[in-house]
Amino acid sequence: MINYPIKRKVQVKTTNYANLGMTLESDIEASNTYYLNHGIAVIHKKPTPVQVVSVSYPARNKAKITEAYYKTPSTTDFNGVFKGYYIDFDAKETNSKTSMPLKNVHPHQIDHLKSVAKQQGISFLIVHFKAYNEYYLLPANVLFEYWDTSHEEKGRKSIPYETFQSRAFLIPFGYQPRLDYLKVVERTLL
Amino acid sequence: MINYPIKRKVQVKTTNYANLGMTLESDIEASNTYYLNHGIAVIHKKPTPVQVVSVSYPARNKAKITEAYYKTPSTTDFNGVFKGYYIDFDAKETNSKTSMPLKNVHPHQIDHLKSVAKQQGISFLIVHFKAYNEYYLLPANVLFEYWDTSHEEKGRKSIPYETFQSRAFLIPFGYQPRLDYLKVVERTLL
Repeated sequence: MINYPIKRKVQVKTTNYANLGMTLESDIEASNTYYLNHGIAVIHKKPTPVQVVSVSYPARNKAKITEAYYKTPSTTDFNGVFKGYYIDFDAKETNSKTSMPLKNVHPHQIDHLKSVAKQQGISFLIVHFKAYNEYYLLPANVLFEYWDTSHEEKGRKSIPYETFQSRAFLIPFGYQPRLDYLKVVERTLL
Repeated sequence: MINYPIKRKVQVKTTNYANLGMTLESDIEASNTYYLNHGIAVIHKKPTPVQVVSVSYPARNKAKITEAYYKTPSTTDFNGVFKGYYIDFDAKETNSKTSMPLKNVHPHQIDHLKSVAKQQGISFLIVHFKAYNEYYLLPANVLFEYWDTSHEEKGRKSIPYETFQSRAFLIPFGYQPRLDYLKVVERTLL
């Protein structure tokens, strides 16, 4: 056989503005699909908000957006309902072996999670420590503690890995669902 | 004074694919902002989903989307949390004086609302009868009744206005919040 040079199609990449690998996001989305199909919960990722500036209308075709920009989301990425409970969370990944930097979390996300907590919603982060390939469910109240002191003079700018081991909950990675975070929610937060 | 001709800036309009006037949507969004700022509830409109095809990166500038298309949303437009309850709804407008056509509702929205109902979420439509300038909160179970029989031979393809008068709930239009639909939710659905 002759090995002809392969012409690769140039793939246009979309930018991912969140500090989030697509793998974690797609693992969560696969879990959400499993939950939905099995009648366990209805949880969706919100679409990435886009500011549309210009649209063209090619004849007989659907509208084509020709200029638009990504906007900063004003909430977390995921929400929905599980057994009557309102569920709200964001997903974060870190390469660090020692802590999750708080700069991974946007101030408006903290505001949002605090508002949700006041309304008795169940809110948390799912944090992937890539170095250990561990997934943690971090309750929002622990996040708030670190966030609220981080601006003080001696406040930490990150949440130590030890805090995850002691005050967050390990989410088992499996086949179906891949990340059964609702089992952890059920055991620990309801 | 000389009246110079005014040069108007050409405004690029974004397309609204939902069968929804911007007024109803913005009235609901203003109400949601009021709820949020007063600690009453956390309810947001989901961003319109966009399929991004092509992005360019002008030097030192943020990413510019140069080709994208509107996607059909897989859920309703609004959701959030109110006193621990999961709230989920869509907004519809009709010019008809006699009924709301069921074609205003997409099948995937029905599927979504049914899934939400199974998870004990609070789900409904807000329907604006423009002819009467009346806003109704239509509980999802009434919607399901009509939807499920609409495909039968003699099934109606719309929900009569009389049904709104007898089985839906009028939402008062006011100043702040403009559409106090959560007061209606609290009285009738919780």
